[in-house]
Amino acid sequence: MINLDLIKSISMPSPTKIVLLVIDGLGGLPNPETGKTELETAKTPNLDKLATESICGLSDPVSPGITPGSAPGHLALFGYDPVSCNIGRGVLEAVGIDFDIQPEDVATRGNFCTVDKAGLVTDRRAGRISTEKCTELCQLLDGQVIDRVKVLVRPVKEYRFIVVFRGDGLSPEASDSDPQQIGVSPLAITALSPESDRIAGIANQFVAKAKAALAKHHPANMVLLRGFSKRPDFPSMTEIYKLRPAAIAGYPMYRGLARLVGMQTLETGTSIEDELKTLNQNYGNYDFFFLHIKATDAAGEDGDFDRKVAVIEEVDSWLPQLKGLKPDAIVVTGDHSTPALLKAHSWHPVPVLLLSKWCRPDKVSEFSESACISGGLGRFPATQIMPLAMANALKLNKFGA
Amino acid sequence: MINLDLIKSISMPSPTKIVLLVIDGLGGLPNPETGKTELETAKTPNLDKLATESICGLSDPVSPGITPGSAPGHLALFGYDPVSCNIGRGVLEAVGIDFDIQPEDVATRGNFCTVDKAGLVTDRRAGRISTEKCTELCQLLDGQVIDRVKVLVRPVKEYRFIVVFRGDGLSPEASDSDPQQIGVSPLAITALSPESDRIAGIANQFVAKAKAALAKHHPANMVLLRGFSKRPDFPSMTEIYKLRPAAIAGYPMYRGLARLVGMQTLETGTSIEDELKTLNQNYGNYDFFFLHIKATDAAGEDGDFDRKVAVIEEVDSWLPQLKGLKPDAIVVTGDHSTPALLKAHSWHPVPVLLLSKWCRPDKVSEFSESACISGGLGRFPATQIMPLAMANALKLNKFGA
Repeated sequence: MINLDLIKSISMPSPTKIVLLVIDGLGGLPNPETGKTELETAKTPNLDKLATESICGLSDPVSPGITPGSAPGHLALFGYDPVSCNIGRGVLEAVGIDFDIQPEDVATRGNFCTVDKAGLVTDRRAGRISTEKCTELCQLLDGQVIDRVKVLVRPVKEYRFIVVFRGDGLSPEASDSDPQQIGVSPLAITALSPESDRIAGIANQFVAKAKAALAKHHPANMVLLRGFSKRPDFPSMTEIYKLRPAAIAGYPMYRGLARLVGMQTLETGTSIEDELKTLNQNYGNYDFFFLHIKATDAAGEDGDFDRKVAVIEEVDSWLPQLKGLKPDAIVVTGDHSTPALLKAHSWHPVPVLLLSKWCRPDKVSEFSESACISGGLGRFPATQIMPLAMANALKLNKFGA
Repeated sequence: MINLDLIKSISMPSPTKIVLLVIDGLGGLPNPETGKTELETAKTPNLDKLATESICGLSDPVSPGITPGSAPGHLALFGYDPVSCNIGRGVLEAVGIDFDIQPEDVATRGNFCTVDKAGLVTDRRAGRISTEKCTELCQLLDGQVIDRVKVLVRPVKEYRFIVVFRGDGLSPEASDSDPQQIGVSPLAITALSPESDRIAGIANQFVAKAKAALAKHHPANMVLLRGFSKRPDFPSMTEIYKLRPAAIAGYPMYRGLARLVGMQTLETGTSIEDELKTLNQNYGNYDFFFLHIKATDAAGEDGDFDRKVAVIEEVDSWLPQLKGLKPDAIVVTGDHSTPALLKAHSWHPVPVLLLSKWCRPDKVSEFSESACISGGLGRFPATQIMPLAMANALKLNKFGA
């Protein structure tokens, strides 16, 4: 495992620049008809040229066999141990809608649900109400102040929302009200530590008020809360790497994750063109850029092999522009594999290429799963990517005398 | 290192099946005349076909340079950290004779030895008495009850035996009576913790009684005990992986090790044919099978290169039958290398192949030490084999959101 204290002790500010291009869900599995993965099927002359000039490998986001969610996948790419750096459920939901969670906030995940006259849960998802209805109900509950704590309620999707309790000195060690089954009453929220008496009391009051306010909104006539949590206090990328890091991501989850590690998030659109434009415009102001491409993962999750191929080809077509900026180190990889054949994230290792003047190129001349097996980076944990990029941008001092 | 708590939190029961075929001491060293190892010399069309369809690699049972015994070699294959998961000497000897050690038992290794009239040890191995004589003497000492604790004595081989103290609330922290040298008296057994006063007292009584009973059995006229230990409380494979695991092993040591991690051991013979028959008969009742082939290691230990080659060829000939069962994941590997040239276990990494519908095959088309170097699994710790097999059988949920 990477020792962040070690990196912190040898990292130094410098004018060199690093671009980390994350093609979400990049890795794939071979199409049974052709024996080629999505990346191997795509025509990628620019990526192949980059691979020829760079050092390549295959990386495991968490460890071999483990399929990562987006959060551990990205934390690993940013150099944080994805197992010990845990993000609570409430915070993760908040991050997922790009909610700017503050260090003192306590966030929880919420479900609108249905209860019968006896108060027993009959549907934990309130008949999957529309996101529009969810938004309307959240507005109804939002903005209350309970015991000097402001309660912020925001819609996520369908029956899902978040509640953020904003006030001083709140502790998040409180039990869920969500019983995770039907036919029983929602549970009273209880403090799991003496410091959490206050949040438990406030949350129970919120639930009671919500029940009253929702009485006439069947099937969404009650709420269930779970995953009380605070923003984790990871050291920021600036503390560890002495970087001025910026995130360019069209989708909220990735901006949220970047913000958790202290990146500046830049306004951008959702297309690759938008993101590259944002990179161009802001290139002078930062020394580390995390560029996130979502469409590959979405195509993989949909099981659409050909669309994933097409997105990879589109990314490839923009590469000369990225390279034209002449970053001191370029990393191209993914946060995990999303094979169209599995229609889901998977455990398969992810191709990585690292280009710099000092990368010691290997003989890989094609950016693909099979070619990267023989790459000079070997097969390695994704947490090593940041130290490698830092070294290649000459931003790490010698360790020891 | 693999985090078993992580695996436990994401493993799920499913109907898919895994077969782990362990060819003991599989890895070898090249014959100086041909430049080929045992595995490379053997004609293995079926293993080579399997390698072509699968993903391959080289694994280190403990870590590079470390030669494992059978216990750490197998613990690693079952996914347990072989360094921290220590098995006491007494328990290991008990396991080695397939003794069904209970959680409350305290086991020790015993030597029959020779003492002179002054009670000084003159031969720590009693002139290497025969196993037959050992068995006879063990019967003499077996079955006593001392201070409500039943004392079970079982022969191992030649001068070696085990003593198992069976009673409630015994602690094993007691010193050895074996002085590990001659010319001195056997040592009094002392408690190394306050809780172990009782076992020390009972063990000293046992030794005194044994001395009296053996007085006329020169050269085996005394006993030496060492390695007081209890069965380790590893989490079982069922707890970690949610598997119904079964072991098919002709030799007692491997059944014993399998039992320590909670596998069911199935009645079988010592030939490969016997073991495959057992697999066939029980295929419907379990979802994980550990199949152990001993003869490769035995040939390696004997320095018999050609016999090891022949055994590998025999294993190869049975593979189509194994494959015919269509397990969802097949792993073929060894617990360590046993090169005939070294006549011993060695530190060399072991070829591994993993076949599943989702394995992402590499370009390796031959199952051998040299070919596996270029495999898609790379070079990796053996503890990662189980998570990989679990993932490939779709028995692991996503980690994190």
